[in-house]
Amino acid sequence: MGYNENNTAIVLLSGGMDSAVCTALAAYEGYKPAVLHLNYGQRTQKRELIAFHEIADHFEINKRLIVDVSYLSQIGGSSLTDKSIEIEKAKFDKNHIPNTYVPFRNGNIIAIAVSWAEVIGARAIIIGAMEQDSSGYPDCRSTFFDAINLAIKLGTKPETEIRVLTPIIDMTKAEIIKRGSELGVPFEKTWSCYKNSDVACGVCESCALRLKGFAAAGYRDPIKYELKIT
Amino acid sequence: MGYNENNTAIVLLSGGMDSAVCTALAAYEGYKPAVLHLNYGQRTQKRELIAFHEIADHFEINKRLIVDVSYLSQIGGSSLTDKSIEIEKAKFDKNHIPNTYVPFRNGNIIAIAVSWAEVIGARAIIIGAMEQDSSGYPDCRSTFFDAINLAIKLGTKPETEIRVLTPIIDMTKAEIIKRGSELGVPFEKTWSCYKNSDVACGVCESCALRLKGFAAAGYRDPIKYELKIT
Repeated sequence: MGYNENNTAIVLLSGGMDSAVCTALAAYEGYKPAVLHLNYGQRTQKRELIAFHEIADHFEINKRLIVDVSYLSQIGGSSLTDKSIEIEKAKFDKNHIPNTYVPFRNGNIIAIAVSWAEVIGARAIIIGAMEQDSSGYPDCRSTFFDAINLAIKLGTKPETEIRVLTPIIDMTKAEIIKRGSELGVPFEKTWSCYKNSDVACGVCESCALRLKGFAAAGYRDPIKYELKIT
Repeated sequence: MGYNENNTAIVLLSGGMDSAVCTALAAYEGYKPAVLHLNYGQRTQKRELIAFHEIADHFEINKRLIVDVSYLSQIGGSSLTDKSIEIEKAKFDKNHIPNTYVPFRNGNIIAIAVSWAEVIGARAIIIGAMEQDSSGYPDCRSTFFDAINLAIKLGTKPETEIRVLTPIIDMTKAEIIKRGSELGVPFEKTWSCYKNSDVACGVCESCALRLKGFAAAGYRDPIKYELKIT
């Protein structure tokens, strides 16, 4: 199959709500989603993998790739991968990079996706990064994605047309939840908590952003929480 | 230690002669080398790892990181990582990308190095890519490295100053060998063959480029070959 006929898009599906909405958007836009999941030794690795498969099942996606990038734990530098660093609580400060930041994680994830895209002939890599309503990670900004797209164009075979797409980058959490609801995203199957794997903590920055988003959208979050800070 | 005082450079040390020369150049330029080695399920993985440690021992480098990126084999698409694809012989054709090309390998390697650099505070990542006298891999071109440097600048914490340096990109193999000899690189400890792990085959494109380089430099290659095509 040549590039013109291949409408496969690799969706980076962590198992969180943003990536679940991206999967729905990819299908809605006419792409045939292939889903990529990364295990990087994060605390909630097993729980996220369950969410990944349940969401992929929901969207009837057969092409799944699970990659072990536990070298990110070996490298460390983040409370997500190093259990000796306590996960800090949500601060909602745009100028503060939380200690959950895994150095250059998106750079690593995208590089893997590009390798896979080149082999399966995918023309898009869809990532649920958000700039507006995010945790302030430097590798989630649109300027970063523009630069990486140029590097991909120059660093892959000339016949490829691989582009990283960030369909929700300018959306707020509330907008993502509304759009996902319209597209039938099974939010009850998604997992966002950085800390727990049974009942979401409700206080880590990922839970906090999710809860704020549901509150702002006026929707009920179908998952259970230990505590709600909003 | 702040960024101004930290002169650590991560050198990507495969165990081949180019990366060995880069290690020597890094030390010569006043950097404190830290060396990064990747196992990606390549055929000569064990032999390359031995070369890596012997070269690092030679230069008395303590900071070593070995990362398993066997997902590159899982993804496939290259004769280096998929044993069902036969390694093609050297063609010396600038417009032909050999089947040893591992899709976006340098993109993956650099992403890992950036994560490590951000954690240990290194300010440079040194990679022995060559544009002139290379195998024509798209991720070895200087335009690719320029783009990736912009992505790194935008995708890492503001206080970092990580740059990918390609000190041998415009050199021929012969020039690299001459420079390496001046700097005392132990070429007998390096390994280049893509195919064998005991006696180098002499006919794969990596052996062929190495042998051509030694011949052009007028030096004797200290390692043994099964066959020499030059």
